Amino acid sequence: MNEFWKDFPVIQQQLNETCDLIKHQVKVRNKDIEQALIDLTCSGGKLLRPAFFFLFAQIGDKQKQDHQQLLKIAASIEILHMATLVHDDIIDDSPLRRGAATIQSRYGKDIAVYTGDLLFTEFFELLADTMNGSDFLHTNAVAMKRLLLGELDQMHTRYKKNITVFDYLRSVNGKTAELFSLSCLEGAHFGYANKEIQRLAARIGRNIGIAFQVYDDILDYSADSKTLKKPVLEDLAQGVYTLPLIFAIQKAPEHFYPYLEKKSDISIEEAIELGQLVHKYDGVTDAKNFAKKVTEKALFDIQKLPDCLGKNQLEQLTQLLLQRSF
Amino acid sequence: MNEFWKDFPVIQQQLNETCDLIKHQVKVRNKDIEQALIDLTCSGGKLLRPAFFFLFAQIGDKQKQDHQQLLKIAASIEILHMATLVHDDIIDDSPLRRGAATIQSRYGKDIAVYTGDLLFTEFFELLADTMNGSDFLHTNAVAMKRLLLGELDQMHTRYKKNITVFDYLRSVNGKTAELFSLSCLEGAHFGYANKEIQRLAARIGRNIGIAFQVYDDILDYSADSKTLKKPVLEDLAQGVYTLPLIFAIQKAPEHFYPYLEKKSDISIEEAIELGQLVHKYDGVTDAKNFAKKVTEKALFDIQKLPDCLGKNQLEQLTQLLLQRSF
Repeated sequence: MNEFWKDFPVIQQQLNETCDLIKHQVKVRNKDIEQALIDLTCSGGKLLRPAFFFLFAQIGDKQKQDHQQLLKIAASIEILHMATLVHDDIIDDSPLRRGAATIQSRYGKDIAVYTGDLLFTEFFELLADTMNGSDFLHTNAVAMKRLLLGELDQMHTRYKKNITVFDYLRSVNGKTAELFSLSCLEGAHFGYANKEIQRLAARIGRNIGIAFQVYDDILDYSADSKTLKKPVLEDLAQGVYTLPLIFAIQKAPEHFYPYLEKKSDISIEEAIELGQLVHKYDGVTDAKNFAKKVTEKALFDIQKLPDCLGKNQLEQLTQLLLQRSF
Repeated sequence: MNEFWKDFPVIQQQLNETCDLIKHQVKVRNKDIEQALIDLTCSGGKLLRPAFFFLFAQIGDKQKQDHQQLLKIAASIEILHMATLVHDDIIDDSPLRRGAATIQSRYGKDIAVYTGDLLFTEFFELLADTMNGSDFLHTNAVAMKRLLLGELDQMHTRYKKNITVFDYLRSVNGKTAELFSLSCLEGAHFGYANKEIQRLAARIGRNIGIAFQVYDDILDYSADSKTLKKPVLEDLAQGVYTLPLIFAIQKAPEHFYPYLEKKSDISIEEAIELGQLVHKYDGVTDAKNFAKKVTEKALFDIQKLPDCLGKNQLEQLTQLLLQRSF
């Protein structure tokens, strides 16, 4: 984590404190699992969502802020994210997450199910502790629901050869953008920024989340197709059809359908051919252009924020994260 | 459900309304899953926890009660229970629950993980709706955590041949008694009973929960051992050692250890022999006596409640449920 944040010392410090709080909060009787959870968060992850939360808090009114409350809310966001990661790894049967073995692969599905559940309770406990009596309790319940519905939507559109951009965005909006949006909104709200800034924060977070996911999905197709990386095969074999593929399919469905109709029986060679087809029909280029437009929307809204260090760093981070060169 | 409650018409009516609310609340895009969830609750289950909730609410101050709030809290309790059932079935790989196919066996673990998660969000949403600003938000977060820790405790003591009564009770206290206790406590609290009644309610609920679980575990051993029912094998093969077995082991560990050391490799014949040994060393009788004592504690506390229909029905239900003849 540390290396990524070296140009953002204030955020780095706040994220370190958030990690300490998560370590303190996540207590289970089995010490191996506890360590696995801490490794997942504080070594493997960037804590991006808490970072956006703190950046928006910086734009608020520092005089009024409760530092402990902010730390706990930041931790609640990351813990909710962790819970969904642990459960996603069960569904994907993923051996690795962030370079380390998943809870599922190390301890089996039994432990993974309960570990994720336990993280939900930690999330819930932190909310009961920080926002009891606030409308944000309901906001969080709804966000958690949308997050899960996004995952379920993705599952329901698996192997759907005529999957639309709308299907894709509906799922991404839930599974990824919702939590980015909530992070920014909560940073602005609990940082005592005004209503207009809160409104902007929610929208900026949503666009950052969408662009983040699209770039992540592009990575699966940006590897040299001759030395095809495992993720491409994994996504395709599991029937998760993402934006580069969707854009490409729409240009020449007749070339893609024979491959897609094989569903999970697609061979490595066929997956490589499919990857080449995605490039041939500009799927990656089109997806990049899409992500670029969404990023520009976010940057445009960031310009409307009041001038301050938080705003500058927000702009810098958004560009660092979303305007990567491929 | 209806048949069980025929002698409790007021409760029956309230449980029907709770079911209607659950049906309204549990909405997922996949209609099959929605139906499976509704079947699980409103056909298969007795809604025991909401029933105890409503019985304690009857003891409170009806003038002050908010009927809609009570219904929603009753639904939140049952939905939390449903969530844990759906996830437990993943871990146990159970084909059947309440005579119907489990979500896991019908739709696979992927759907089962998310369905359980989704139920957690529904639970959370109902709490945000009914007790925002109340200390009970925290009480619920803690209860949910204890419930899961009870399940984890059970998992950690699997195949533990020297498992103690303390190990067993610690797990039961979390996985079963906690939610019974919360149901009774919330009924008293949100039904506007006084503090003393609330304190009694929590204790009565805890004892009812413990006795309920012990009787449930006795059922596994009360089948004729020659026509051994599947549950015995399942529990033993999965290394879940319950009170009848624990009591028997303590009397003659040397007779039990050779069987238990086989762990999941125990054969059907050996499991039958083990069941006979449990009877031989009075494991079932001792467990019944234990459950009887715990039930008597609950009934003793029920006597301290103010005289009213709720009290009478509470006594009747507790006896119906816990003083079964074997």
